[in-house]
Amino acid sequence: MVIKIGGNIIDDENKLSSFLKEFARILGKKILVHGGGKLATRLAGQIGIQQQLVDGRRITDAETLKIVTMVYAGYINKNIVASLQAFGIESIGVCDADGNLIKAHKRVHPTIDYGFVGDVDEINSSMLQGLLEQNLCVVVAPITHDGNGQLLNTNADTIAQELAKAMSSHYHVRLVYSFEKNGVLLNVEDENSVIPQINPASYKKLKEDRAIFAGMIPKLDNAFTALQSGVQKVIIGKAEDLTNLIEGYAGTTIINE
Amino acid sequence: MVIKIGGNIIDDENKLSSFLKEFARILGKKILVHGGGKLATRLAGQIGIQQQLVDGRRITDAETLKIVTMVYAGYINKNIVASLQAFGIESIGVCDADGNLIKAHKRVHPTIDYGFVGDVDEINSSMLQGLLEQNLCVVVAPITHDGNGQLLNTNADTIAQELAKAMSSHYHVRLVYSFEKNGVLLNVEDENSVIPQINPASYKKLKEDRAIFAGMIPKLDNAFTALQSGVQKVIIGKAEDLTNLIEGYAGTTIINE
Repeated sequence: MVIKIGGNIIDDENKLSSFLKEFARILGKKILVHGGGKLATRLAGQIGIQQQLVDGRRITDAETLKIVTMVYAGYINKNIVASLQAFGIESIGVCDADGNLIKAHKRVHPTIDYGFVGDVDEINSSMLQGLLEQNLCVVVAPITHDGNGQLLNTNADTIAQELAKAMSSHYHVRLVYSFEKNGVLLNVEDENSVIPQINPASYKKLKEDRAIFAGMIPKLDNAFTALQSGVQKVIIGKAEDLTNLIEGYAGTTIINE
Repeated sequence: MVIKIGGNIIDDENKLSSFLKEFARILGKKILVHGGGKLATRLAGQIGIQQQLVDGRRITDAETLKIVTMVYAGYINKNIVASLQAFGIESIGVCDADGNLIKAHKRVHPTIDYGFVGDVDEINSSMLQGLLEQNLCVVVAPITHDGNGQLLNTNADTIAQELAKAMSSHYHVRLVYSFEKNGVLLNVEDENSVIPQINPASYKKLKEDRAIFAGMIPKLDNAFTALQSGVQKVIIGKAEDLTNLIEGYAGTTIINE
């Protein structure tokens, strides 16, 4: 089970805590990938660093990298671990430089310099499996490295997808993208407009009709990539409804046929 | 081999990098415990949090805890890991909440409220051994937890001592305290006044004569505690001279007889 927790859940102590309580109850081997929330942006503001976004992606200059490393791999990661331990789950928090979990390279783009943003090259499956086999729940922050000592800020949805794919050769893997919405919505203003199932054909049509919120597209692309690489099931939905999500009683299930 | 790196080495990118290069060359199982350096104090200053010290110990209020968690367990820990990976050492960075490595309690003191400062209760030896047996070099940040979800700021010298003690029932352990000085100095102004060996009797005399710098006393107390609990050897000396330290060609060796 690879679960990504994102969106504003991380910024809300109560919501995060009740999510982690539900997460703790899930049986079997677990990987939790978390994003960053707004704390990094707030901290950057406090010390006078301007944040830039292009196409919804953060431009990561050296100072911003420092902040996201501190906030994602330090503050958020360790607080999640401490909470899970309190719920009786032996968990270990890592970034993707740890044990060479994910090697990446600085993004190459013809026109935009993303700064210290990493695109994934390679997963160290055996190290990750070693942790899981030690019965540790692995909590992953989205900071990769290039193998030459450089940390890189990396999209957490992509990391969840890559880890799910890598683990699918060893385990039956379900990938859950959980966030503040009920699922993939037909109307972004209406929480009751959840699309229960999306397959490649309906996805193509939804995109053509511009019926899905643009912010969902990278997540859905990640979902289909995961499915095509052996992940059993991908579910997208509300973090506070985790148990129902996992059982398929809520959210959007992405299928491959 | 448990090595503590502290003092201003952490603040100096070049010194830290050459230390890590030497550290990477050491054979056998390795644990690196790091302190915090001045970055936490600087960051606190930038966002307007006043730091308080009592008897050389930081008083850790909620905001300071947030900062040390970010800086120690995030920025410093992950940059050390990325550097070690670049030197070919598969290493994993953890704080002491990870895998329940060190359970601690909030310090109880009759007159001073230290805030979120932890005193060590218990080490999860089997989890740590599991990581070492996975051939991972373990990089440890001095942030413990109380098992109820609360992170706690903890003295890194003490953590190194506790981990060395815990591992001494499984391995032959040497504990090295490395910092900016050549060793335990008779005259704190004179780097050539290194005391090559200290045993309990000479330590007692040095303390009576007030011949040792007060800041060294907690480190030496930690050293003797470690020796009494089965650690084979404790060495104190200059981080930049790590290879010689380990071989006993430099620094101060603490012995039990």
